[in-house]
Amino acid sequence: MHPLLKKKGFILDIDGVVGRSVEPIEEGVRGVLKLIEAGKRVVFVSNNSTRSRRILLERIKSFGIPASERDIISATHATASFIAREKNGARVFTTGEEGLKEELLNAGLKLVDYEEADYLVVGSNRNLDYELMTKALRCCLRGVRYVATNPDKIFPSENGPTPGTGLIIGALYWMTGRKPDVIVGKPSKVIMLEALRRLGLRAEDVVVVGDQIEVDVVAGKRIGASTLLVLTGVAKKEDLEKASTKPDYVLPSLESLFYS
Amino acid sequence: MHPLLKKKGFILDIDGVVGRSVEPIEEGVRGVLKLIEAGKRVVFVSNNSTRSRRILLERIKSFGIPASERDIISATHATASFIAREKNGARVFTTGEEGLKEELLNAGLKLVDYEEADYLVVGSNRNLDYELMTKALRCCLRGVRYVATNPDKIFPSENGPTPGTGLIIGALYWMTGRKPDVIVGKPSKVIMLEALRRLGLRAEDVVVVGDQIEVDVVAGKRIGASTLLVLTGVAKKEDLEKASTKPDYVLPSLESLFYS
Repeated sequence: MHPLLKKKGFILDIDGVVGRSVEPIEEGVRGVLKLIEAGKRVVFVSNNSTRSRRILLERIKSFGIPASERDIISATHATASFIAREKNGARVFTTGEEGLKEELLNAGLKLVDYEEADYLVVGSNRNLDYELMTKALRCCLRGVRYVATNPDKIFPSENGPTPGTGLIIGALYWMTGRKPDVIVGKPSKVIMLEALRRLGLRAEDVVVVGDQIEVDVVAGKRIGASTLLVLTGVAKKEDLEKASTKPDYVLPSLESLFYS
Repeated sequence: MHPLLKKKGFILDIDGVVGRSVEPIEEGVRGVLKLIEAGKRVVFVSNNSTRSRRILLERIKSFGIPASERDIISATHATASFIAREKNGARVFTTGEEGLKEELLNAGLKLVDYEEADYLVVGSNRNLDYELMTKALRCCLRGVRYVATNPDKIFPSENGPTPGTGLIIGALYWMTGRKPDVIVGKPSKVIMLEALRRLGLRAEDVVVVGDQIEVDVVAGKRIGASTLLVLTGVAKKEDLEKASTKPDYVLPSLESLFYS
């Protein structure tokens, strides 16, 4: 039996572990089903800053994985939870899309224009324009608390690289000198601590599984969990040599846990 | 007579020296008319990255200053001239507005999509959207020569601060790690050398006049010209104490040259 199977809980990345966009990764899906069968607690963590948990849940279910909204932590949801814990009912101006707005409202926060906001929440937006960037700039210049859903720079889409949340973070940094006060998504600890809370486990009882060294493995190390890199996504075996952070284990896929 | 009146040429900023947007600054305009009367060579230099010289010329004429297109160097025009000198007929992808495109075409350059470009030309665009930013990102990732019209971060509009070219520069820097290979506008030397060439004078025979220490005065010092800060624009007397660069002279307005 693989030594990681002694652990009680698994924090799983979605993209590159159990699916690629809307397509399932069969070995990854079989791996999750076997973990559940073995009685492990499982939670999915995604840096996605444009979709609500509801949409991510639909996707995971479509892969054939039994799950509920409680089993999913998206950067959108974790951002909303984080702010609601800091300041219940806070007034928020966000650059984000509907998925982020949905989570902010669900957490009891108020969506307001930039002049009235206590928080600036930066998330990616594929409908951004000069007016939205002007509002974000002015909100940032007001000095309000500034939270970013994730630090993702470039998102690899089917027809080529597209800008991530980093477009807005970078623009604001260059114009105002301000970086986010808090970044929620991986490799930040914020979203990982939310995942531990959801599992009800301590870090030493948990494995963090992902396909990106600088995102998933670094995030796992930061909370002191065991880390497993799977090669069904971004990272290739060759990347391990140049990486400054080494995962505790590397396997071809999540399912390989049960064959090694 | 003011010692600067011994110089042969004057490189004048527009905004904050002779006008505020479309409104003339009367003391500034009178100052220019007196310089021309005294036989001085005069050229206007603007960091504006959205307007062609044609539009800036119309504005200057509307202030009552006799001028021709040759007397104006905009960041749009200087960018086009710079690239045309480096590579005649180069293929350019630009983020810019019509004013920049007009100058690029006038200089004999070809406007193409990002896949075919030899140059990425970044200028501000009030109609920017996610698609334009995606194209700029991909062009930048291709590693082509990258020229920015100016480094301006924030533009003070009538209803509050709005993003300058720095929005796009900052976004690309954060996402790709690349800064422009060349910045044309002030405080860069590139636009100032173009102005000297236009005047047909050496830097020691020229005065650079502007309302911003970090933009105009720094640009003047970089080419070794004399510098005059006027207080009809952004800079206030108090700003001089904290400034790391000191202008050679400070006067209430351009016209004050003739009364001191």
